[in-house]
Amino acid sequence: MTSLMDGPLTDLFSARAANIKQSAVRDVFEISMRPGLISLAGGNPYLQSLPLEKLGATAAAIIAEQGLEALQYGGGQGTLELREQICQVMAAEGILDADPDNVVITAGSQSAQDVAAKVFCDPGDVVLVEDPTYVGALNTFEAYQVEVIPVAVDGDGLVPEALRAQLARLRAAGKRVKLLYTIPNFNNPSGAMLAEDRRQVVIDICREEHVLILEDNPYGLLKFDGEPLAPLRARDSEQVLYLGSFSKIFAPGLRIGWALVPTALKQRFYLASEAVTLCPPSFNQMLVSAYLRDYDWLGQVAHYRSLYRERCETMLEALDEHMPAGVSWNRPSGGFFIWLTLPEGIDTYPLLHEGIEAGVVFVPGAAFTGAEHSNSLRLAFSAVNSESIREGVRRLAPVLAKAISAR
Amino acid sequence: MTSLMDGPLTDLFSARAANIKQSAVRDVFEISMRPGLISLAGGNPYLQSLPLEKLGATAAAIIAEQGLEALQYGGGQGTLELREQICQVMAAEGILDADPDNVVITAGSQSAQDVAAKVFCDPGDVVLVEDPTYVGALNTFEAYQVEVIPVAVDGDGLVPEALRAQLARLRAAGKRVKLLYTIPNFNNPSGAMLAEDRRQVVIDICREEHVLILEDNPYGLLKFDGEPLAPLRARDSEQVLYLGSFSKIFAPGLRIGWALVPTALKQRFYLASEAVTLCPPSFNQMLVSAYLRDYDWLGQVAHYRSLYRERCETMLEALDEHMPAGVSWNRPSGGFFIWLTLPEGIDTYPLLHEGIEAGVVFVPGAAFTGAEHSNSLRLAFSAVNSESIREGVRRLAPVLAKAISAR
Repeated sequence: MTSLMDGPLTDLFSARAANIKQSAVRDVFEISMRPGLISLAGGNPYLQSLPLEKLGATAAAIIAEQGLEALQYGGGQGTLELREQICQVMAAEGILDADPDNVVITAGSQSAQDVAAKVFCDPGDVVLVEDPTYVGALNTFEAYQVEVIPVAVDGDGLVPEALRAQLARLRAAGKRVKLLYTIPNFNNPSGAMLAEDRRQVVIDICREEHVLILEDNPYGLLKFDGEPLAPLRARDSEQVLYLGSFSKIFAPGLRIGWALVPTALKQRFYLASEAVTLCPPSFNQMLVSAYLRDYDWLGQVAHYRSLYRERCETMLEALDEHMPAGVSWNRPSGGFFIWLTLPEGIDTYPLLHEGIEAGVVFVPGAAFTGAEHSNSLRLAFSAVNSESIREGVRRLAPVLAKAISAR
Repeated sequence: MTSLMDGPLTDLFSARAANIKQSAVRDVFEISMRPGLISLAGGNPYLQSLPLEKLGATAAAIIAEQGLEALQYGGGQGTLELREQICQVMAAEGILDADPDNVVITAGSQSAQDVAAKVFCDPGDVVLVEDPTYVGALNTFEAYQVEVIPVAVDGDGLVPEALRAQLARLRAAGKRVKLLYTIPNFNNPSGAMLAEDRRQVVIDICREEHVLILEDNPYGLLKFDGEPLAPLRARDSEQVLYLGSFSKIFAPGLRIGWALVPTALKQRFYLASEAVTLCPPSFNQMLVSAYLRDYDWLGQVAHYRSLYRERCETMLEALDEHMPAGVSWNRPSGGFFIWLTLPEGIDTYPLLHEGIEAGVVFVPGAAFTGAEHSNSLRLAFSAVNSESIREGVRRLAPVLAKAISAR
């Protein structure tokens, strides 16, 4: 009998499977776990400051008293209670008009990105991203055979003129641009914040060009000083699909994120989300609900803001003290990350292994969009104490100095 | 300025979004919640028989003592501890050669289905399914623009000759068949079990035709009497990608499932899974691990088996007593469901609303593969006590009798 297809089992892979690649960043996180190393790699929140004992008691009560609900299937959109509370969280983030009916709770906001790519992107469609941007988003888009095209950023975030020029170029080339994926507040990895006076301009460009903005705002509440800068979604409820997360302000291990979806798009988005996971985990939603209801969660956010500000300052001081000439970096006003840039022509990926030998781990810039940032690297200050931050930077400096002098 | 695209925002939807449809079954589950109704609709496990108080204490200990791990990001493949334990669960299911390295933990086995469709199916590819089959799988495949083609089943499950004939027909039509999706043990919705002597035949056909078998086995351990029938994967580690779940033997609200992936396919599958959810929820994995380690989970499965056998018998007795002539049904040897068939020409979907007026909810057959089963319906006996089962069937009988006599 002739086979429908000949060849080994791997011939069964879809065309899109070829786009699903091993990410350079994975090695880094595995390596980070080695004892003795100081990891400035992972964008992990500092969970030590959560009231774990009390949270344990809350979890116990949920399972003992509401276990039939907590351990059972739930609705595909998530519980109404949590969707209402998420609207309050978004109000703190600067979005005052969110309707719980337009909130879809997902298995982390990563899953919401996946659903967005599925629902909006055909193979060959273009997604614009900040350059550099979140590696996890790149993995998601690439798995849908999307053409990911970077837009230049400067210290004030996305450059509107670059966005406009890129769109004109793509239009001329006959490309179909579907989404602008952006992290306007404390970008991962660059730490950059989109300037207030650019926000409406970016929205207007996308509206003119009929491009949906996929706004990812996990760090929005973690501005070190003053009020959070309102996200793009606060200015436009139609052109912006907003992604939120409890991973940076509460607990990533629960995998609870959400999307606030424009009314016209919500039903499709919701059905696609349901087809992926049936429903978000019931227990996890109930624990987050209890946390938002019974704990001083805004007080905890305030604590995190001051903790991360302090750590960021410590890292900046250590960089000032130890880094050789030729290395530059930004001074973030929130979030988890500082972005270091070395002289052009130095690839930080091979330096990773020298860093590990010196006892410190970072994420090479190439992870965040290919060759253009190979002379950069990301340091996270969120999860390590001040002493380790200082020691990590002290260990890193001679590795970079050697690379610069060898150039 | 000319737009890249004209038209409303919904023009941004991908081609595949058009395939993401409202499922007929959703209404049913929402309706099921109404007070006073007896729901024979949902395939929910009977969680009342779990030791909820003790599970609460276990959850508390995990968060209080290991919270920094339980609430933090974890590895994309899932914890090694749980992957090793899952190999023990699979051993109980009849698979003795599973390697933890080939296990990928997912957000419910629904998510593993989604990843399989993503990794293996291009638009227009064919997935063969049992007719009828699980509605959630249909939703997943359709979201990838896959052509879902049914293969006939009888009381002994998939008919090998029908599978062979369907493959020949598709080959002649130039179609590319990628997957056979099958629930060989206590099929949802039909309750049918693939006969022992058909199992190797089905594998041989798929091997000859170079079709990967996607075996879904959430009910495998819930055979009422005797040993579980070994799944297809027990006979073939290369041609079968196996999906397992804790949703029917423990707690669906935790959304923990898994895939056991052939070695040649594992890396791609794993990377695709990671791109969807980053990592499965850490706390949930640790709670399942504790349950498998510190509780008599096999004793609980034995309890479930006898409980569901009793409920199934109650439902069969009630059907014998109340159902009018013209209605037939199977006598399942495990699982959650009984599949009723009415005379041809009767559509059970409109009867749903009459059922609700009479105080009982079921799932119309059309949900499980289009028009061919519109004269069938699914009853679940898993989540309701004997009294409600009897009363539910008593309420349903006159609705069906009226439809039959009106024909």
